[in-house]
Amino acid sequence: MHTIVLEKIKEYYLELLPFNKVLGIGIDHLDYDSCEAIVSFPMAPELVGNPVAGILHGGVTASVIDLTGGLSALISCAKFHEGSSPEVIAQKLTASATIDMRVDYLRPGKGRSFQCKSRIIRAGSRIVVSKIDLVNEQEVRIATGTATYLIG
Amino acid sequence: MHTIVLEKIKEYYLELLPFNKVLGIGIDHLDYDSCEAIVSFPMAPELVGNPVAGILHGGVTASVIDLTGGLSALISCAKFHEGSSPEVIAQKLTASATIDMRVDYLRPGKGRSFQCKSRIIRAGSRIVVSKIDLVNEQEVRIATGTATYLIG
Amino acid sequence: MHTIVLEKIKEYYLELLPFNKVLGIGIDHLDYDSCEAIVSFPMAPELVGNPVAGILHGGVTASVIDLTGGLSALISCAKFHEGSSPEVIAQKLTASATIDMRVDYLRPGKGRSFQCKSRIIRAGSRIVVSKIDLVNEQEVRIATGTATYLIG
Amino acid sequence: MHTIVLEKIKEYYLELLPFNKVLGIGIDHLDYDSCEAIVSFPMAPELVGNPVAGILHGGVTASVIDLTGGLSALISCAKFHEGSSPEVIAQKLTASATIDMRVDYLRPGKGRSFQCKSRIIRAGSRIVVSKIDLVNEQEVRIATGTATYLIG
Repeated sequence: MHTIVLEKIKEYYLELLPFNKVLGIGIDHLDYDSCEAIVSFPMAPELVGNPVAGILHGGVTASVIDLTGGLSALISCAKFHEGSSPEVIAQKLTASATIDMRVDYLRPGKGRSFQCKSRIIRAGSRIVVSKIDLVNEQEVRIATGTATYLIG
Repeated sequence: MHTIVLEKIKEYYLELLPFNKVLGIGIDHLDYDSCEAIVSFPMAPELVGNPVAGILHGGVTASVIDLTGGLSALISCAKFHEGSSPEVIAQKLTASATIDMRVDYLRPGKGRSFQCKSRIIRAGSRIVVSKIDLVNEQEVRIATGTATYLIG
Repeated sequence: MHTIVLEKIKEYYLELLPFNKVLGIGIDHLDYDSCEAIVSFPMAPELVGNPVAGILHGGVTASVIDLTGGLSALISCAKFHEGSSPEVIAQKLTASATIDMRVDYLRPGKGRSFQCKSRIIRAGSRIVVSKIDLVNEQEVRIATGTATYLIG
Repeated sequence: MHTIVLEKIKEYYLELLPFNKVLGIGIDHLDYDSCEAIVSFPMAPELVGNPVAGILHGGVTASVIDLTGGLSALISCAKFHEGSSPEVIAQKLTASATIDMRVDYLRPGKGRSFQCKSRIIRAGSRIVVSKIDLVNEQEVRIATGTATYLIG
């Protein structure tokens, strides 16, 4: 059952959200019990924000931090509605939304590929807060963020 | 002279930053004296983040808030180096970067087109803080943000 | 009736919250319809955070921004429960809490007295977001903040 | 030499900043190499922000997060000016200031005593970013924060 929910969330993110395709993200891992989420994407010419330095656009960084934290929030949401019908859970998932987010840009976004990891630091029935880190393929932390989500 | 600097900033943003093209942004207005910046972009299928509601992806919102606030920071940077050679100013501009940003998602990102306005609330020789608002074509405020920039 | 609710909120803040007495705050104005709140306090030796410059401690600034934004949130909460018994409203008020807050320190906290003004930028049944400004007696803006509240 | 600098920072915080005395803080640990700082304080009647629940005022939480993160920033500042005269270092320390801060209130501030720990996540010559956690005597995390400092 948990696997079905995680597959639904994955499908929703990868198939139905056009901007996630623009970013080129894949989902490496979703954990039902801990609500951890890991997303990755390769560097691509259209994601560049500083042509001189060849680094990631700050908007790409912010986007991936928001969507990875959102995956943790969706898992948390699904857990709160565990036992509900798939239709109810699907409705709750699409009704969830980011309230606010802080992004700290720690180092220039250099790299060939990037991984973004999220974990939950507050899990409520209505409010979920995620802590998110973006690293490159050498595990250098490029950015970190905290985001607050309203759960459907 | 001021016009030349503003044209350089515009060219840099619109021609040289690939991700800005993905977002489809245009620059409506840059004001040298006040450092205000206005950016706009039309809704597009690839910018959608919630297919059920047909609203803007939160990452698009965050991206446009960051880049519009960055325009205000760049103008402020150019003013601080007023009188320097174009080469020096160009170098300062590419050396500027976002330190951190907060985004508040106030209402669902519905609309046919969007406008993002930034003004400066702290103007230092090294640190600039911008306050940014995103509205749709009906002047409904969708999101607001505050971003801190390090100036080259 | 509205006056009674506002008086209750005032009494709660000024009589029952010990740390508000430490800060020396008074409530200048609460508006039921707009949810605006205005708080003021005089400079005092124990509020200093930089003895060389004689300026406000950053924690005082953050405290007053949080509590003033909280007043707007409480009025909003009371409005949502309009018509409920005073007991229910009182219970809702004490169940409300800050979720997260950003403070931007714009200028050194110099002044003989300070005023803090809050207005609501998102008013939901569960989530309220306030925008808050702190100025000194010469209307110089010292700090600004955005805070998200969970409503009881 | 390092010990002298840390003692100077301690003295400055504990003797010269009146609001730190109001909060009742002590400094448990400062580490020169890692820039880690640990501060603690006991619950006290005047620090209460919700008389029903008997919990910490949100402003106290924000204050301690700001000042603990500031200690990490001051150590980082002192390291950057290593070798300078004590007078120069003292001048740099008092010229440092918080630029902005985010606080996430994760759980009600219940406890008999509290400890606040800060570490640096960005160490620049001008900008330092600290990550700060507040826990009670049972190691329950009550709040977390991220703060950006301008270094003298």
